[in-house]
Amino acid sequence: MKHLGNRVEDVKIAYVGGGSRGWAWGLMSDLAKAEDMCGTVYLYDIDHDAAKKNEVIGNRIKNVDGCRSPWSYKAVETIDEALAGADFVVISILPGTFDEMESDVHTPEKYGIYQSVGDTSGPGGIIRALRTIPMLEVIAKAVERNCPRAWVINYTNPMTVCMQGLYKAFPKIKAFGCCHEVFGTQKFLAEAAAEMLGIEKPDRSEIKINVLGVNHFTWITKANYMGRDLYPVYKEYCEKHQDGADHQADDNWMNNFFVSAEKVKINLFRRFGYIAAAGDRHLAEFCPGNWFLKDPETVSRWKFALTPVSWRKNDLKERLRKSAELYEGKKEFEIKETGEEGVRQMRALLGLEDMVTNVNIQNRGQIPNLPMGAVVETNARFSADSVEPVFAGEIPPEIYPLVSRICGEQQLISEACAERDLEKAFCAFICDPLVTTIDWADARKLFDEMVDNTKAYLGEYL
Amino acid sequence: MKHLGNRVEDVKIAYVGGGSRGWAWGLMSDLAKAEDMCGTVYLYDIDHDAAKKNEVIGNRIKNVDGCRSPWSYKAVETIDEALAGADFVVISILPGTFDEMESDVHTPEKYGIYQSVGDTSGPGGIIRALRTIPMLEVIAKAVERNCPRAWVINYTNPMTVCMQGLYKAFPKIKAFGCCHEVFGTQKFLAEAAAEMLGIEKPDRSEIKINVLGVNHFTWITKANYMGRDLYPVYKEYCEKHQDGADHQADDNWMNNFFVSAEKVKINLFRRFGYIAAAGDRHLAEFCPGNWFLKDPETVSRWKFALTPVSWRKNDLKERLRKSAELYEGKKEFEIKETGEEGVRQMRALLGLEDMVTNVNIQNRGQIPNLPMGAVVETNARFSADSVEPVFAGEIPPEIYPLVSRICGEQQLISEACAERDLEKAFCAFICDPLVTTIDWADARKLFDEMVDNTKAYLGEYL
Amino acid sequence: MKHLGNRVEDVKIAYVGGGSRGWAWGLMSDLAKAEDMCGTVYLYDIDHDAAKKNEVIGNRIKNVDGCRSPWSYKAVETIDEALAGADFVVISILPGTFDEMESDVHTPEKYGIYQSVGDTSGPGGIIRALRTIPMLEVIAKAVERNCPRAWVINYTNPMTVCMQGLYKAFPKIKAFGCCHEVFGTQKFLAEAAAEMLGIEKPDRSEIKINVLGVNHFTWITKANYMGRDLYPVYKEYCEKHQDGADHQADDNWMNNFFVSAEKVKINLFRRFGYIAAAGDRHLAEFCPGNWFLKDPETVSRWKFALTPVSWRKNDLKERLRKSAELYEGKKEFEIKETGEEGVRQMRALLGLEDMVTNVNIQNRGQIPNLPMGAVVETNARFSADSVEPVFAGEIPPEIYPLVSRICGEQQLISEACAERDLEKAFCAFICDPLVTTIDWADARKLFDEMVDNTKAYLGEYL
Amino acid sequence: MKHLGNRVEDVKIAYVGGGSRGWAWGLMSDLAKAEDMCGTVYLYDIDHDAAKKNEVIGNRIKNVDGCRSPWSYKAVETIDEALAGADFVVISILPGTFDEMESDVHTPEKYGIYQSVGDTSGPGGIIRALRTIPMLEVIAKAVERNCPRAWVINYTNPMTVCMQGLYKAFPKIKAFGCCHEVFGTQKFLAEAAAEMLGIEKPDRSEIKINVLGVNHFTWITKANYMGRDLYPVYKEYCEKHQDGADHQADDNWMNNFFVSAEKVKINLFRRFGYIAAAGDRHLAEFCPGNWFLKDPETVSRWKFALTPVSWRKNDLKERLRKSAELYEGKKEFEIKETGEEGVRQMRALLGLEDMVTNVNIQNRGQIPNLPMGAVVETNARFSADSVEPVFAGEIPPEIYPLVSRICGEQQLISEACAERDLEKAFCAFICDPLVTTIDWADARKLFDEMVDNTKAYLGEYL
Repeated sequence: MKHLGNRVEDVKIAYVGGGSRGWAWGLMSDLAKAEDMCGTVYLYDIDHDAAKKNEVIGNRIKNVDGCRSPWSYKAVETIDEALAGADFVVISILPGTFDEMESDVHTPEKYGIYQSVGDTSGPGGIIRALRTIPMLEVIAKAVERNCPRAWVINYTNPMTVCMQGLYKAFPKIKAFGCCHEVFGTQKFLAEAAAEMLGIEKPDRSEIKINVLGVNHFTWITKANYMGRDLYPVYKEYCEKHQDGADHQADDNWMNNFFVSAEKVKINLFRRFGYIAAAGDRHLAEFCPGNWFLKDPETVSRWKFALTPVSWRKNDLKERLRKSAELYEGKKEFEIKETGEEGVRQMRALLGLEDMVTNVNIQNRGQIPNLPMGAVVETNARFSADSVEPVFAGEIPPEIYPLVSRICGEQQLISEACAERDLEKAFCAFICDPLVTTIDWADARKLFDEMVDNTKAYLGEYL
Repeated sequence: MKHLGNRVEDVKIAYVGGGSRGWAWGLMSDLAKAEDMCGTVYLYDIDHDAAKKNEVIGNRIKNVDGCRSPWSYKAVETIDEALAGADFVVISILPGTFDEMESDVHTPEKYGIYQSVGDTSGPGGIIRALRTIPMLEVIAKAVERNCPRAWVINYTNPMTVCMQGLYKAFPKIKAFGCCHEVFGTQKFLAEAAAEMLGIEKPDRSEIKINVLGVNHFTWITKANYMGRDLYPVYKEYCEKHQDGADHQADDNWMNNFFVSAEKVKINLFRRFGYIAAAGDRHLAEFCPGNWFLKDPETVSRWKFALTPVSWRKNDLKERLRKSAELYEGKKEFEIKETGEEGVRQMRALLGLEDMVTNVNIQNRGQIPNLPMGAVVETNARFSADSVEPVFAGEIPPEIYPLVSRICGEQQLISEACAERDLEKAFCAFICDPLVTTIDWADARKLFDEMVDNTKAYLGEYL
Repeated sequence: MKHLGNRVEDVKIAYVGGGSRGWAWGLMSDLAKAEDMCGTVYLYDIDHDAAKKNEVIGNRIKNVDGCRSPWSYKAVETIDEALAGADFVVISILPGTFDEMESDVHTPEKYGIYQSVGDTSGPGGIIRALRTIPMLEVIAKAVERNCPRAWVINYTNPMTVCMQGLYKAFPKIKAFGCCHEVFGTQKFLAEAAAEMLGIEKPDRSEIKINVLGVNHFTWITKANYMGRDLYPVYKEYCEKHQDGADHQADDNWMNNFFVSAEKVKINLFRRFGYIAAAGDRHLAEFCPGNWFLKDPETVSRWKFALTPVSWRKNDLKERLRKSAELYEGKKEFEIKETGEEGVRQMRALLGLEDMVTNVNIQNRGQIPNLPMGAVVETNARFSADSVEPVFAGEIPPEIYPLVSRICGEQQLISEACAERDLEKAFCAFICDPLVTTIDWADARKLFDEMVDNTKAYLGEYL
Repeated sequence: MKHLGNRVEDVKIAYVGGGSRGWAWGLMSDLAKAEDMCGTVYLYDIDHDAAKKNEVIGNRIKNVDGCRSPWSYKAVETIDEALAGADFVVISILPGTFDEMESDVHTPEKYGIYQSVGDTSGPGGIIRALRTIPMLEVIAKAVERNCPRAWVINYTNPMTVCMQGLYKAFPKIKAFGCCHEVFGTQKFLAEAAAEMLGIEKPDRSEIKINVLGVNHFTWITKANYMGRDLYPVYKEYCEKHQDGADHQADDNWMNNFFVSAEKVKINLFRRFGYIAAAGDRHLAEFCPGNWFLKDPETVSRWKFALTPVSWRKNDLKERLRKSAELYEGKKEFEIKETGEEGVRQMRALLGLEDMVTNVNIQNRGQIPNLPMGAVVETNARFSADSVEPVFAGEIPPEIYPLVSRICGEQQLISEACAERDLEKAFCAFICDPLVTTIDWADARKLFDEMVDNTKAYLGEYL
């Protein structure tokens, strides 16, 4: 890496999971727009062929209109090659295949447990954590070996447990976890502000917020637009839209598995008085099972959707088709900013720009009433070679019972994974808010079945 | 109060709830045995007649065989008379009547929510808190006015919320809360030790323990008998008695509402690896409703009992009869040590003896991973005019999700009570582990019904 | 205050000490440059005539070339008029006159105690605190009465004690304290970077730092320029310039009381390994008296200067002359940015721009090994209606003995002032690093003499 | 180790420094009185001959009148033999010889620095720490290897640094440090109580106290005798005895190097309002050098004494003579309780008796305003296999500046020792309150000279 005045060259980024047909292309796009930094991205993936394809796709971007920074891409066969001397490491992997995810999401339905995502907490998130953490430990150890001073950005879920896995495997790792769910809520607040104040919809960056909680179960305790406190504004909005906001006419919760009417979020506000800051599909999974996920009818009444894994499998086929087209040059790569902040964060860490945004790191007191050392999500200041949490304050009493148990559950899963201890994982499993709808005996049967379904990835536990 | 060498005379104790036909007699008995302290107990009760009767009963004890300390008893008509210049204040009141308690315990049954006690958490405990805290605030203010340096011992439930109520109403109050549930578990450990080690049953005081948690949901993280770690001993015991310990032949869970087979406690240990330290009837109420309290059959399978309020009403009649007999002199007062520690604690506070025992006070760091300022139960050192917590350590990760939510729920109820805010109380209500078995709409109906049933005591909220 | 798109109008600023001939003009200059905010500044000063003059001076600025924002100025006769409905309150007062300061700075010289500034700690700072805090309490109470939600920016010294005074007098006050000493060190680091790296001198804003400590005794634990760690760079620089940096040719320590050769700072780094971040004149006063302030020769050897109060008195005459010229229109007001951040902070608090900078606020954990609640200086994030500390980390062990005692001394003085307790103040006095060079008896005589000299302002203590 | 009812047999104690002619005999005496425990003491000493002599002396005690517990003593040649399977490890060593101590104590006198003890802080304590910690690390590693679950009791000075050395070398060590200085202050309080209240002198155990600080610079914030607050009593006493208490007629500070008139302690109370709880000789060394140790005349005026190392050398000759007599059987061993608590602590750890007393362990929050992890002295509860701190509260603001710097200095020395870093040690050295009376250059010369004088023991640093 070389700093030349206000530019940085020869930046080395290692992308673990670099065969991705989604996140990887987004990163390529954002890098192509970053005028003041340039270098090489090393793509590593257990599907080496996919990485190879992305190498070809990436290297063509130099020639695309709108490319302002000509990055090189190189697929490598080992993780050590990818990481050797890296300045940044991006981790975005799928642990296992969609077959495992199918078990995670749909097996619990036999016991009356419905999950809208199934990758963070709930029975699905817990089993997913079991197979993910050993993979992240391998990566952390490789970072220690190859580039101990690199900054590591994780996008893999379950975020909280993954981050703890990285920290435990290599305690000096400079790692943080990124997630865009909060951004969605900023946009929703912008929408509410526009409607209630009769103004044009602000950009999400203009909605100033204080964030706190655990990933996907984050809360906004202060929101302000141009000096105006958005709490009373949002309160009125929620009263008006008790039954949900039909904010996306074409793309609503009835025909899109990822869209909701924000009805869960609106009613969590009406009930608890604080702004929940993630998609309704995620929020629902952290609440007691009877509230929003009792059965498909309940889900429908709350106007969000259960994302079936079959949809993901189909979607993957689409993305494979797109990959082939890009690879073969039948289709031109389109450079457009993704709204993700990974590249801006890298620029901040390189000293090119300061920023404050929400990330997942260990609690050093930024949330005083959650345990020290637990992975939490709050704002942090990004500056040259530095990520430091901004003080976020206490979890408000109204939501502390909801949040603290989840924080604790994630900590417990982290320990269970680190110790490869299924019985400890089962302690977390039976306490999960979706699983407490059934009794111990059924929970045991479900757990064993889910472990058995995914045992190809759980050898170290058995 | 006068110290004469190793004796203290003219001690003034104010007993709020001094008409009691149970706790009051126990205290009288223990005081009669306390050779090195003597003085007067002022009995105050909203049922002044009951206090008057206890005055007569108490003053007769001087003449009973075995009385080593001749205390005087005096019923007074106002709380100020009772408290003026008091050295100690004992609070042991019934908030409302058993009719209110009947609503607390049995109204939820219509919605499929069963409670074994109903006085601590769960729907019953929450509603009980609402009517209790305003009473405790009155007492705290009276302490501030009359005897700000007195030590205040509370026995009233719900303990955690009551203590917080006292602290909020008079922040400099020197108050702690006492409960004998942990003693019962020490005895059970003594029993287990006797059986597994083939020794005579030790006295509970010989079972050295480290206690932590919130009242009635306390846990023992270290247990030792004569240098021997009881954890492996208890583990074997629990494996042997998976289906419950029939430890009291005559007096078992089938014919006594207060006795259990400890099967809940045994299986919480087998599942989570830590010793729960309260009666099964209490423990069950803090766990997800589907675990132990799903329905009467489940309760029966777990070998404990639901205490009906009708039993309490009958029992009261018995006690009234006994009171009359004692008052009229038809029956002689029997002095026997109760096993309660109130009198020993007073002696410690007077500088006569040091002791360490478990109490309920605010968290100043004795449990680092629960919120500072929350009321928690751990060991504390009692010495002359001093109660200081002993460091208890973190709530272990396996049980943190269970305990932290309860701690938070109790904090939230405390706020709701202090602010006379029913909506805040309802936030706690719907998050309670017994209530999450139903949905929001039903929870609302139940809450409103329970409030309505007890509205005679909830005027300040309405 | 009105938000109009990206502009804010009708902002109301109250300036307490608004007769100032220095800070006030700086603020006027910076406000004139702030295109996106406009409003009125209410000038309050016990010297009402001075405020009146500044009203005239300020209102002329509209017509000066380069004025981009036409602020109005209005002198008022009472603090309540100034504060009523204020959005911002600026506090910049001189407690007492330079006669009192003369006693603060020079009386200790009789006892062999030399002070280079005498306004923060040391005997002078302590006595100054005694007369300042009652004034700040009056201001805090007026804020509570007139504009409890206003943001209060304090520039008055002794900063740490003043901030604590504001917080104690009105606990909900939204106040922070600003000081430019750290900026000077950023500039010095820029200079060192330029020299050692052979680059052009960077702007101070490009030197990214982590700051921690107490005001005027702050330390930089991380410094980075464009991705380059400045610690090794500064280390080399300090070795090269052990005897001081003659960095300002025309304006050096021999002919200017405010300039030093940074020799103290350089050698604190060489000795303790951390970058001290304030002027040498301040740093010296927090260190043991024998190190840098033993006698005038020692000061001279360390290449900084003792600022005599006579200089300040003369300088005031200069400023009065300039004031008269500006007031009479003989001289035109010159608009130039001051480098102070007050106006940028206001813009951030109005939601116009986010920023991170160093401020003085209470410790909520940003420095975990200093006492919670003590006033400390670290970075904080400024955003819409929000100032939140950024986690700064622990005071490094090498400097903890130096810093913790100062932090404690300032806390103790705060208590002494709040309680108007001279004996408590004397506890701080005898422990001060400059005063420990003499014995208790002499310290007592000195203290009494200094109190007596300034007794016109200490009536509430006597 | 075998528990037989209320007795424990086959206890194995390892005594490192077991050739001692003082502490070792005291322990033997106390063990001989301990009816309910028995076993073997393994004596290890680098002076094996001394250990052998103590073996003989110890084994004779069985036959002495008043011996209630017949312990066996066995000198061993290696530390591993001593520690293998030990239940308790006692550490009481002299680091180096009195020649090194002579340099520690007297070399600084050339620079005008006088020390009354020279073994804890001050220049002597720091140099002593340098040679002691490597020895304690060897012991800690041997504990880890041979008896990782043993309880380790350290008596070696400098206590605070030694404890930190043990914890760093073997983080799971179950170690605490004991010191009797606080007992002396309890006795002095008993004396004051007797005089002022006109009562017979109470036993020190009846003086109930709250202790906090760092070893030898501990403070008592609450003191109570039989329910009576001793603070006002002590205040009157101190006013009466401003010039010192001639409390020991035969054995006063003029003819005994270890006795003082408590004048330092009395006047620290009069000045700061808190009871300092160590001998004046120790207290003086933690205060600024000009206060009590300016020169021998000052010491004399404060009525304590500088203990010359020549005295220790002579005293050693006396003890060698006594050792010979005991060894040869010319003199009978006298069993008398020492007042030390080591044996009672062992009994508590064995489950035979609970107790609360002051010890040196890491701060886990017992003193919230000192750094977590620093070694501090407070009360702790001793119970079966457990030592847990009792919450002691914050260092009061009046004395925080004095105490926090010492706590930090000791932490810094610990780091310097662990890292064998003389430059870091010098950072502590120049900040020490006795050394700040001289300038950096002299401090350097002194430090270098003291290191050179003791270099035989500092090989790992050079």
